[in-house]
Amino acid sequence: MKIRPLSGFPEWLPRERLIEERVIRAISRVFELYGFSNIETRAVERVSQLIGGGDTGKQIYGLHRLNGAEEAADELGLRFDLTVPFARYVLENQGRIPLPFKRYQIQKVWRGERAQEGRYREFYQADADLVALDHLPLQVDAEMLELLHAAVSEMPVPAFRIHINNRKLMEGLYQGLGVTDTKAALRSLDKLDKIGEAKLGRELREQQGFSEQQVSTALAAAKIKSTSLDFADQVRALGVKGELLEEGLGELGTVLEGTSLLPEGAIVVDLRIARGLDYYTGTVLEGFVDDFPELGSICSGGRYENLTQDLGSKEKLPGMGVSVGVSRLLGKLLGSGRLSASRGSPAVVLVAVADEASRLQAKRVAAQLRQRGIAADVFLGEAKFGKQIKYASTRGIPYVWFPAVGDATSDEVRDLQSGEQGAADAGDWAAPPLALEPQVLLDGAPWGR
Amino acid sequence: MKIRPLSGFPEWLPRERLIEERVIRAISRVFELYGFSNIETRAVERVSQLIGGGDTGKQIYGLHRLNGAEEAADELGLRFDLTVPFARYVLENQGRIPLPFKRYQIQKVWRGERAQEGRYREFYQADADLVALDHLPLQVDAEMLELLHAAVSEMPVPAFRIHINNRKLMEGLYQGLGVTDTKAALRSLDKLDKIGEAKLGRELREQQGFSEQQVSTALAAAKIKSTSLDFADQVRALGVKGELLEEGLGELGTVLEGTSLLPEGAIVVDLRIARGLDYYTGTVLEGFVDDFPELGSICSGGRYENLTQDLGSKEKLPGMGVSVGVSRLLGKLLGSGRLSASRGSPAVVLVAVADEASRLQAKRVAAQLRQRGIAADVFLGEAKFGKQIKYASTRGIPYVWFPAVGDATSDEVRDLQSGEQGAADAGDWAAPPLALEPQVLLDGAPWGR
Repeated sequence: MKIRPLSGFPEWLPRERLIEERVIRAISRVFELYGFSNIETRAVERVSQLIGGGDTGKQIYGLHRLNGAEEAADELGLRFDLTVPFARYVLENQGRIPLPFKRYQIQKVWRGERAQEGRYREFYQADADLVALDHLPLQVDAEMLELLHAAVSEMPVPAFRIHINNRKLMEGLYQGLGVTDTKAALRSLDKLDKIGEAKLGRELREQQGFSEQQVSTALAAAKIKSTSLDFADQVRALGVKGELLEEGLGELGTVLEGTSLLPEGAIVVDLRIARGLDYYTGTVLEGFVDDFPELGSICSGGRYENLTQDLGSKEKLPGMGVSVGVSRLLGKLLGSGRLSASRGSPAVVLVAVADEASRLQAKRVAAQLRQRGIAADVFLGEAKFGKQIKYASTRGIPYVWFPAVGDATSDEVRDLQSGEQGAADAGDWAAPPLALEPQVLLDGAPWGR
Repeated sequence: MKIRPLSGFPEWLPRERLIEERVIRAISRVFELYGFSNIETRAVERVSQLIGGGDTGKQIYGLHRLNGAEEAADELGLRFDLTVPFARYVLENQGRIPLPFKRYQIQKVWRGERAQEGRYREFYQADADLVALDHLPLQVDAEMLELLHAAVSEMPVPAFRIHINNRKLMEGLYQGLGVTDTKAALRSLDKLDKIGEAKLGRELREQQGFSEQQVSTALAAAKIKSTSLDFADQVRALGVKGELLEEGLGELGTVLEGTSLLPEGAIVVDLRIARGLDYYTGTVLEGFVDDFPELGSICSGGRYENLTQDLGSKEKLPGMGVSVGVSRLLGKLLGSGRLSASRGSPAVVLVAVADEASRLQAKRVAAQLRQRGIAADVFLGEAKFGKQIKYASTRGIPYVWFPAVGDATSDEVRDLQSGEQGAADAGDWAAPPLALEPQVLLDGAPWGR
C-alpha cells in the first residue's frame, strides 16, 4: 500500500531529523547561555484568545471531537505562533514568574496556509522574548540582536547579516512626506523585493494617491542601507523632517551602537525592512544569508509596546522578541542538498553475533561500550558476518565488533571505511571523536562546535 | 485580567519545564546508546487512518479551518498515540528506511478524555520500537526490556520493577479452562486491581458465565508472580493444559532468561498484567515504582504481529515496542513535591551594571563567561546593587559579578548563598560544577549525572 504524503506537513528521515535536533539543541544552548529560561506551552488555545488581535482567523485550525461530544465551554484551536501563547502564559502565571522575564520557546505551530503556495502548515519556530513590567530600556534591543546573532551563528548556514529598521523612523518619514495612511504605505513597501520598483511606484500612485515626489522619496528611502551611523545623514538628505522621524533615527542609532561587540557589518540598517511594522512599535529586524538569497529571511523580530494588550490586560508589558524559522530554513537547506548528516543511526559500533550461543557475550560487549558512552547496536538474528557487515554499512554505522569466539584470543573491531581490522578491548577501545556522534555536514564539511 | 487554566492541558513553570527537558534528554541519550534513531512525525494524521484499527474515534480531536475554508480531500485529526503515526511513517517511507528499523520518538499526543477523570488531554510519550520485515527473533523482547530498564533508570523515580506477561500464555490458560471469549475475560482481569477479587469474581460468574472452578483458577492464576523461571511450575500447578499455554510459557521463560544482564529482581513475571493483551500478540509489560504505588504504571509495551496491518499493508512488519508516559509520571512527581529544580533560570552569573556608562564593560564580562560555557545574564536597567542582587536571588542565580569601575583594581564576584565576595577574572573564574547548571532534586537530593 502506498501512503500519499500530506502537503505542507514536512517530516524528516532519521538523518534529517538528526540535523533538526542538533540545530534545536544548539540554539537552545545559546539562549540558555544568555540566561533565557525554556518553556513550552500547550498546542491549543481558546479560539477567543487566538483571534483576539486581528483577522488571522482564516489561518487557524479549530478542534472538534470526532464523535461530536460536547467540549467544555471553550472552543479550542491550534496555536499559529508562539507569541499569543506566551502572552497568555505570562498572564496566567502572574505572580509566579518574576518580571523582567527572559524566556525561549521552540515548538511547532500550525497554519492553514494554501498548499499550492508551498508553505508549511506545521513547522518549528524558535522564539526568545524579554518582557518587563511598564518599562524596557532601549539597550535591550541591542542585547537581543547579539543573542539572535549568536543563535543563528550556531546554525548550519553560510555568512548572514541582520537587517534592522525602526517603526517610528518609517512612520515619521511617511508622515513628514504628507502620507496619511502610513500603515498601508508600509505594507506596500514590504512588497518591494517581490514586485520591483516600477510596480511598487505604480501601486503607490494609483492606489494610495502618492505624488511623483512622494513616490521618488519613498523609493530613495527604501534604498538606504548602512552598517554605520551615517544612515542618519542619508535619511536627513531626503529632506523630510519631523519629531517622530528624529526619535526613530535616535533609537536606531542607539541600537546600532549598542551592538558594538558584534563583528563589523553583522548588523545593517536597512530601510526596506517593513515586515511586522504593523505589530512592532520600535526596532524591527530580519536576517538574510548573503550568498543564499533564495532562503529569504531566516529570522525576524522586533520591539512591542505591550505583550498582553490583546488579552485585555491592564498592566503594560513591553518586550522585545526574536524568532528563528527553524523548519523553513532547514527545509530549504536540506532541499538544496547543501546540508547532510554523516549517518542516520546513532550507533558507533555494531556488535556482530557469531551464533545464538554467543549472544550474551555480544550483549556484554555492547553494555560495556554503552557504559563508556559509545552507542552500540547488537545484531538481531543469526546471519553470516557478511550480512551483518552490510547491516552496519547500510545504516552508516562506522565500526563492526567481533567478540572473541572459539579459538580467538581477543575481540576484533573493523573500521568499515578503511577496511582495517584489529584486536580491541571493549573496556578501553575509543572511537575517533568524529565517529562518536553522527556529523552534520554543510557543503560537505563538518559543521558545529 | 485573570486567565482560566484549561483542564487536562498541563503546562509547567520554567523550573518544572527544566526537569521535563532533562528527563527527555536523558531518555533520548539511552535510546541512542542502544542504537535507536530519533524521528518526529507531524501532529496530524488522516482521520481515516487514525480510526483504522478500532473504535477509538471518540477520543480523537478532528481539525477544521475556523473560517470554514475547504481543506483538501482529507479530513485531519490529531494523533492520539505514537504508534499509528509510526506505522504510517514506515509505510510512507518504504525503501528509504532500512529494515529492521530501530526508532524512538518523544512527542506530545492528544486525547479527548473527560476532564473530570483528571486525565491529560495533551501529554508527552516516549516510545521506542524495533520493527523488522516478516520475522523478529524472540530475544529482541529481552533486549527491549533491557532498553526500557536503562531508560527508566535515567528518570527521577525511586526503585522500580518491570512486570511481564505473555498473551499466548493467558489465552492458552483461558482456553484450557474452557472459557470461550478469552478477550472479554482478559479485559475483566485487567480490572482486578481496581475492583478487587470479590467483585471481579462476581463479574466473571454473572457476565461471562464462569463456573466456580473457572473463577477460582483464574483468580489463583492472577496471583502468580515470580522473578525466576519457577513461574512455569506455578502455572502448571493450576492443572490447566494446552499447546498455546506451553508456547506462552516457553516464550515468557526465554524472555526472562534473556534479561540476565539486568539486576536480580528487575523483571517480574506477573500474570495480572493484562493491559494491551488485545493489541499485543506475545510479550506484554508494565512498570511500577514499588514505594510509590499511586504513580500507577509508569511504562508499558509489548510485542505485536504486524505494525502496519491497520493500514492495509501486504507486508508483515512484526515489532516490539516500549513506551514511557513522561508527562503523567512527571505530573504526579511534581504534584507530590518529591521532585524539584534548584533554580528556574539557566544563568550562573548575573553581571551587575554600575551605571549605563559601564554597560559595555558588563557585556564584555558576560561575553567572556559565555564563551567559556558559563551562562550569564546582564542586569537590564539602572538600579542600586541591592536591587540587582535581589533580581538574581529571586531567580535563583547563584552568583553576582561586579565589574571593576572607578578605583577598583579587580572585578569581584559574590556567592549569594554564602555571602562571600572576592576578586575574580572572567577569563579564568570557574563555577562549582553543581552550580553550572540547575540541578534536579528527588526528595531533596541531587538526581542524575
